Amino acid sequence: MIKIAVDAMGGDHAPVEQILGAMKAVETIDDIEITLYGDKATIEKTLKPHDRIKIVQSEGTIDMGEKDPIRAIRSNRKSSMAMALSSVRKADNDAVVSSGATQALIAGAHILVGRMKQMKRTAIAPVLPTASHKPFILLDSGANLEIKAEYMVQQAYFASIYAKEVLGVESPKVGLINIGTEEGKGRDLDNEAFQLFKSNKHINFYGNVEPKEVLDPPCDILISDGFTANIVMKTIEGTAKGMGKMLKEELKRGILGKIGLLLSAKNLVRFKKRMSPEEIGGAMIYGLKGVVIKAQGSSKADGFYNAIRQAAHVVRQDVIDKVTQVIESEAENE
Amino acid sequence: MIKIAVDAMGGDHAPVEQILGAMKAVETIDDIEITLYGDKATIEKTLKPHDRIKIVQSEGTIDMGEKDPIRAIRSNRKSSMAMALSSVRKADNDAVVSSGATQALIAGAHILVGRMKQMKRTAIAPVLPTASHKPFILLDSGANLEIKAEYMVQQAYFASIYAKEVLGVESPKVGLINIGTEEGKGRDLDNEAFQLFKSNKHINFYGNVEPKEVLDPPCDILISDGFTANIVMKTIEGTAKGMGKMLKEELKRGILGKIGLLLSAKNLVRFKKRMSPEEIGGAMIYGLKGVVIKAQGSSKADGFYNAIRQAAHVVRQDVIDKVTQVIESEAENE
Repeated sequence: MIKIAVDAMGGDHAPVEQILGAMKAVETIDDIEITLYGDKATIEKTLKPHDRIKIVQSEGTIDMGEKDPIRAIRSNRKSSMAMALSSVRKADNDAVVSSGATQALIAGAHILVGRMKQMKRTAIAPVLPTASHKPFILLDSGANLEIKAEYMVQQAYFASIYAKEVLGVESPKVGLINIGTEEGKGRDLDNEAFQLFKSNKHINFYGNVEPKEVLDPPCDILISDGFTANIVMKTIEGTAKGMGKMLKEELKRGILGKIGLLLSAKNLVRFKKRMSPEEIGGAMIYGLKGVVIKAQGSSKADGFYNAIRQAAHVVRQDVIDKVTQVIESEAENE
Repeated sequence: MIKIAVDAMGGDHAPVEQILGAMKAVETIDDIEITLYGDKATIEKTLKPHDRIKIVQSEGTIDMGEKDPIRAIRSNRKSSMAMALSSVRKADNDAVVSSGATQALIAGAHILVGRMKQMKRTAIAPVLPTASHKPFILLDSGANLEIKAEYMVQQAYFASIYAKEVLGVESPKVGLINIGTEEGKGRDLDNEAFQLFKSNKHINFYGNVEPKEVLDPPCDILISDGFTANIVMKTIEGTAKGMGKMLKEELKRGILGKIGLLLSAKNLVRFKKRMSPEEIGGAMIYGLKGVVIKAQGSSKADGFYNAIRQAAHVVRQDVIDKVTQVIESEAENE
């Protein structure tokens, strides 16, 4: 049995949607057991009892707008997020899924789960939809704003193993996010990373990729520092939101437009769904001793369910062990 | 009369679309004269003679994929781009409009037009459409990949004056592109820039802006270093392209969808047009002794015309002189 800790109290629609997601997960996935961390009385209002779901009482939550995430975690060891994270370190569970505040989850994962031996930096890595139906991994989406090129190499190992084991890509291609495709483009960091990726036998390096291909990338993994990749992620979100608004305005204009809009309603819903990262799952925090998945803060039941399914799959495929082997063997070779 | 130098040979559809754009410009704008730099015989095949358009013969062009732009400019002084730029330094013209290679144009502008006294770095600044019909300036979209915060302050002066004089915004708000809205977010550079902007009397500082608001920003100017802003620009482009592809696919599905698509055809064209940066004009290179506008490489006649109209407006409003006054008075106060 794969044991999943769910932070039931974190997220915009917590705990109801988190509970519904967990219920769907045990109903459809046979080899998992879920522990919901949260307020028992509140959870029981929504939860339909199931022999593979249990509740552990927590106290307090980590605020979404928390300005000092490290302090928040340290002073709320009994919060649902902190207890869920600690349960992985204690080996009570194999993975954590949380829709709580990203920075608090990253900080909490460092403190309470711990970084993999020899892994220099963590990364947060969402899987995003593309126009070609083949999702890609974007990292580091915000764990380390400034980073050395050699640490990016370790993150690329992780992403490559994840893409192979979880997304089923045979030999995943890694692209470096850059302002031009030619070798030599970009900042010093980008040039150093380019050279390290190019000469590394564990990395199938595609080369530089400009974000003007971001929804149809020629590779399975797009990597940059935590500031840049976070900016890319948020710009995709902002553009999608802005375009959606403009599209709605333009489609509504005129009588023909209005009829067209009615006839296309189902298609537009499908389009919207296809753009939603929740369809694929959450963002994994790379580099920890355990599996920690950050589901979107705005997750509804289906989105949260997808994140649980993803967590189970990562555990099932032994991703952490496989990465540890590569990282440690590389560290020995140095 | 405002005198505009047009690089007729640069761009994906040069010289035909550039010539058609220039013809439209002299027909609709009374106070401009245009000089087309390019191959006379080729130009005359398209150009309808006009008393406010003349041709100056050039030799050779700067390749769009030029890897060493500085060398390209230095060794092609008779190219249409180089001659157009030089004409501004010689005061034969007031402004240059080119759809040629961006990096070559930036390098050429430095060498042949020259940087404003006291201005430490140039910037390239497109004006982008928003969902709220109020365009915003994005800079630095790629002139200086790594930059000091104090130089960003000068660029913000320039953008503020441009927004006021050319876009007609009374007190333009400047937003710093960042990964979070709170003070203290981001890299060291972002934090330094935040403090300098906040305490500067020439800048109406809004604060940090996350790119998830990029098509509906709460300010008139979004600023970052040349790497980050370029990444933002290309991510907008990539997302728009990818979403357009997905939208088309989804709308076509099913018989109702197909009928809906037919009825919405005009609305979708309007939507596409609204997303096009060409509707607004080109990107100005800030910090030069003259007005240099980079029109999109893919410009058609209307897009190029918009860039010429923009160049004329920048000259008419004395933007360069107004910026020079602020920069020099600030330099004296140091």
